[in-house]
Amino acid sequence: MTIEFPAGMTLRHPQEDDHPRVHALLDRWWGGLGGDAGSQQRVLLLPRLYFQHFTTTSYLLERADGELTAFLIGFLSQSDPAVAYIHFVGVDPAFRMQGIATALYSRFFEQARQLSRRYVNCLTSPENLTSQAFHARMGFRSLPGADIGGVQVQPGYDGVGLDRVVFTLDLAIS
Amino acid sequence: MTIEFPAGMTLRHPQEDDHPRVHALLDRWWGGLGGDAGSQQRVLLLPRLYFQHFTTTSYLLERADGELTAFLIGFLSQSDPAVAYIHFVGVDPAFRMQGIATALYSRFFEQARQLSRRYVNCLTSPENLTSQAFHARMGFRSLPGADIGGVQVQPGYDGVGLDRVVFTLDLAIS
Repeated sequence: MTIEFPAGMTLRHPQEDDHPRVHALLDRWWGGLGGDAGSQQRVLLLPRLYFQHFTTTSYLLERADGELTAFLIGFLSQSDPAVAYIHFVGVDPAFRMQGIATALYSRFFEQARQLSRRYVNCLTSPENLTSQAFHARMGFRSLPGADIGGVQVQPGYDGVGLDRVVFTLDLAIS
Repeated sequence: MTIEFPAGMTLRHPQEDDHPRVHALLDRWWGGLGGDAGSQQRVLLLPRLYFQHFTTTSYLLERADGELTAFLIGFLSQSDPAVAYIHFVGVDPAFRMQGIATALYSRFFEQARQLSRRYVNCLTSPENLTSQAFHARMGFRSLPGADIGGVQVQPGYDGVGLDRVVFTLDLAIS
């Protein structure tokens, strides 16, 4: 089943000069989550290389006036031919609750299936409860970890102090 | 020509549980370059995903006692079939000036050639003059940018305040 994007919006792969455009939106779209450290984390987790070398499995959604509404940065695991990975996703807060993230993920799942990937992996931060609820609704399971207020946290997953909630989805059963 | 590593050292691909081992060495190996901000940048530029999904083009060099001497994290561009990318390289300061970085790069070039990649791209920070001199010796050309004290700088290349020196090597003429 293909999930449709809102009328008048265009989906395309990003190119290198989209990198500063996406960066310019991060603080507003994330509402400053995590303060200055969170802001700096988001910038450093999205270096230009994703807009150069992983464009074919990444997507931008634009409105008719060319403004960005959402993006998804994903890649195919080079080491594990069963896995596709969603690295970073954002939706303009003014366009939430319209199924845009669901449609972006569905497009990525469809491509992953076509390319014979069985699993889709991704992660989020322990404080991003909205993201965790979204992934649960999409059918992702979180890797069992330290139970912190009902959240399965992997302490220091990405480095000292960089705790993560780690998700996987089995496309064969979703 | 295959460049040899020092006797008694073992080259292998990394696996996921090498991620914290490499992180634990970053501050010492980089000598605190860039202060706290530099330290945080290095951590965030090396998330666990590289040790999960790009292991087949990445390398660790270990001494006979199992201690890490050097590492190279690289990948094949998914979007551009002509390009291989070196993302992050470190050598224990106690083992520099022995040709280890040269041997790691040469191993990566050899693999890139075998996989029909023509270009190897990478970047460094404007303040890392040692790295810039190394890449020049290896035959990399820097992308023309803002000339700052003789260094070709790409301002804001990886985001606001994240200036870079950007290198490419043509394997067909090197």
